[in-house]
Amino acid sequence: MTTGVGFLGAAGIARKTWAALHAAGLRVVILGCRDVARGETFVNECATILNIPEADRPKVVGSYDDVVSHPDVSVVYIPLPVSFRDTWIRACAANGKHVVCEKPPAHNAEQLEEWIELLAIKNLMFMDGTMLSHGKRIEHLQAQLPSLVGTIRHIHQEFCFTASPDDIRQDPALEPMGALGDLGWYAVRYAQHLLGAPKVVSATCERNEKGGITVVIALLQYPCGATQTFRVGLNSASTQSMLVTGTIACLSLDDFCLPVVSGTTSYDMHRNTIRSVGCGVPHERHGETIVLEEDSTFQEVQMWRDVTTVVTTVGHDRRWSALSLQTQKTLDAIVAALPPFEPKK
Amino acid sequence: MTTGVGFLGAAGIARKTWAALHAAGLRVVILGCRDVARGETFVNECATILNIPEADRPKVVGSYDDVVSHPDVSVVYIPLPVSFRDTWIRACAANGKHVVCEKPPAHNAEQLEEWIELLAIKNLMFMDGTMLSHGKRIEHLQAQLPSLVGTIRHIHQEFCFTASPDDIRQDPALEPMGALGDLGWYAVRYAQHLLGAPKVVSATCERNEKGGITVVIALLQYPCGATQTFRVGLNSASTQSMLVTGTIACLSLDDFCLPVVSGTTSYDMHRNTIRSVGCGVPHERHGETIVLEEDSTFQEVQMWRDVTTVVTTVGHDRRWSALSLQTQKTLDAIVAALPPFEPKK
Repeated sequence: MTTGVGFLGAAGIARKTWAALHAAGLRVVILGCRDVARGETFVNECATILNIPEADRPKVVGSYDDVVSHPDVSVVYIPLPVSFRDTWIRACAANGKHVVCEKPPAHNAEQLEEWIELLAIKNLMFMDGTMLSHGKRIEHLQAQLPSLVGTIRHIHQEFCFTASPDDIRQDPALEPMGALGDLGWYAVRYAQHLLGAPKVVSATCERNEKGGITVVIALLQYPCGATQTFRVGLNSASTQSMLVTGTIACLSLDDFCLPVVSGTTSYDMHRNTIRSVGCGVPHERHGETIVLEEDSTFQEVQMWRDVTTVVTTVGHDRRWSALSLQTQKTLDAIVAALPPFEPKK
Repeated sequence: MTTGVGFLGAAGIARKTWAALHAAGLRVVILGCRDVARGETFVNECATILNIPEADRPKVVGSYDDVVSHPDVSVVYIPLPVSFRDTWIRACAANGKHVVCEKPPAHNAEQLEEWIELLAIKNLMFMDGTMLSHGKRIEHLQAQLPSLVGTIRHIHQEFCFTASPDDIRQDPALEPMGALGDLGWYAVRYAQHLLGAPKVVSATCERNEKGGITVVIALLQYPCGATQTFRVGLNSASTQSMLVTGTIACLSLDDFCLPVVSGTTSYDMHRNTIRSVGCGVPHERHGETIVLEEDSTFQEVQMWRDVTTVVTTVGHDRRWSALSLQTQKTLDAIVAALPPFEPKK
């Protein structure tokens, strides 16, 4: 039987989510949107692009209550801003619905842990919408990094784009963690897959006049001794660079979060050499691009296949909620290390 | 008339220096080496590789005094460890010799400033051996960066290699700044050319059992608001990566200090895009490699052409000493921000 999904809201990211879950064989049953007309436009646009016949298109309702209580909904997808989620996740637990939620999931790890437990006692799943965690590339690198780069010494990431002034990440009332909660979430999660749970050595940020976090630069350290730096920002050209420095080689990606459009994914190996030869010290470039058999959209579709697997088998799966909780804990620690907001007088 | 150079010591780096100054039309007149036999082996090896006829080969002497007082020496090249330099730079000033010195030049900026002034009052030059400062690529980027990347938001660099345990950078008695003084010097200097004089936001390090600085991670901020992070280390695979993140594009180098062997130098431009299209958010890779007409050895030869220009015209040139002093000041500030060495009990 097709797994039914209910949407809370018609956020931009929900378009992509719909395409992914549709490709994975799930179905959007109902969509809640305060502005029903806007919700219907959203449904018509997406359903047309995805070639979903009229009869199979979701109903649009003005009340989120109608979504979380709908009998054909197994999973509720929540792309609402962080500040609006608590009520609806509790309602999901009360109504026996699994939850897939955009990141950062919660205001803090305590809140997230409470949600996870509320759901778990009803055998319901909590999964955040971190698509990169479901890709083949991260799985491949987790397994292969020791043979590729030796011991990891350092990971550096840059994840930036230019946000419009009305972007919700600019508004601390909607997204208290701003750039950190979105772009920083991915930087932390990627390293978490490779290195585990870090401690925060130092972190600094830039804020806008409302106190919204627009740039974060952080230094983390992992139990193995490896370190991570990242810069995430809403004020720069688009970049998703990652450099991994190891003892025997280095590795780089320019698309660590969202693979560039292609029938494959890839990463670059670097084994440059410097040595003394006669009266010279030649620096030579060596390395290659490694290509994986994975369409660039694989990770987003696989995420919903993983949702289906959990929903139709074990009910809830600590693997996904534990991943989410650890990332949230790291972000909490980074926020705690940031200098406080001082409004300009 | 050919500008005569005297060498203090036969360090490994002096081989490359000799090749560069030879290509620039200067001549090594005399080489001082405590172990005269080792010095003679060094001279014979280098002179053979460089096709220098027997009659033009430098004399090897056991005393540095004989080098700094030699009448045919205009410039003394000092690749000695930092801790041994003070005596000989004072001797150069006393004997009317220009100084070209490996980096980091001094124990601290006060010492360097004193040397610079001692030399300047005699119309003598102080230049450090930072070859990248003499290349066409840095000059090109200084001029073109605003049109290439817009406003610079951030520079990140990784400069590492795997040092042997007896490398002088591992020994705080010889090189008190360790990895910072060598690899970090280049990271700071490069950004200095592009952004000016920074303040240090934070810095941390790893040390060996002798207290030698083996890894430094630092965060700097520039007057324009741009930031810089770098990691330099003696415990990782060879890498010289630099990422420049701007408001309209990003730029990368994998050889920012020493260009890879080639008849040209180059850098990579990145203008990746992410946009919402229908139900997708395609990430597209755009960019190109920009090639400059500059042999990879140009910068090291040009450095000695610049030495000749100064020596044969103005005598001393504040441009080079001021560059050096600023880099030393930044390194001093980074050292001051590092956690102190705590020997294991």
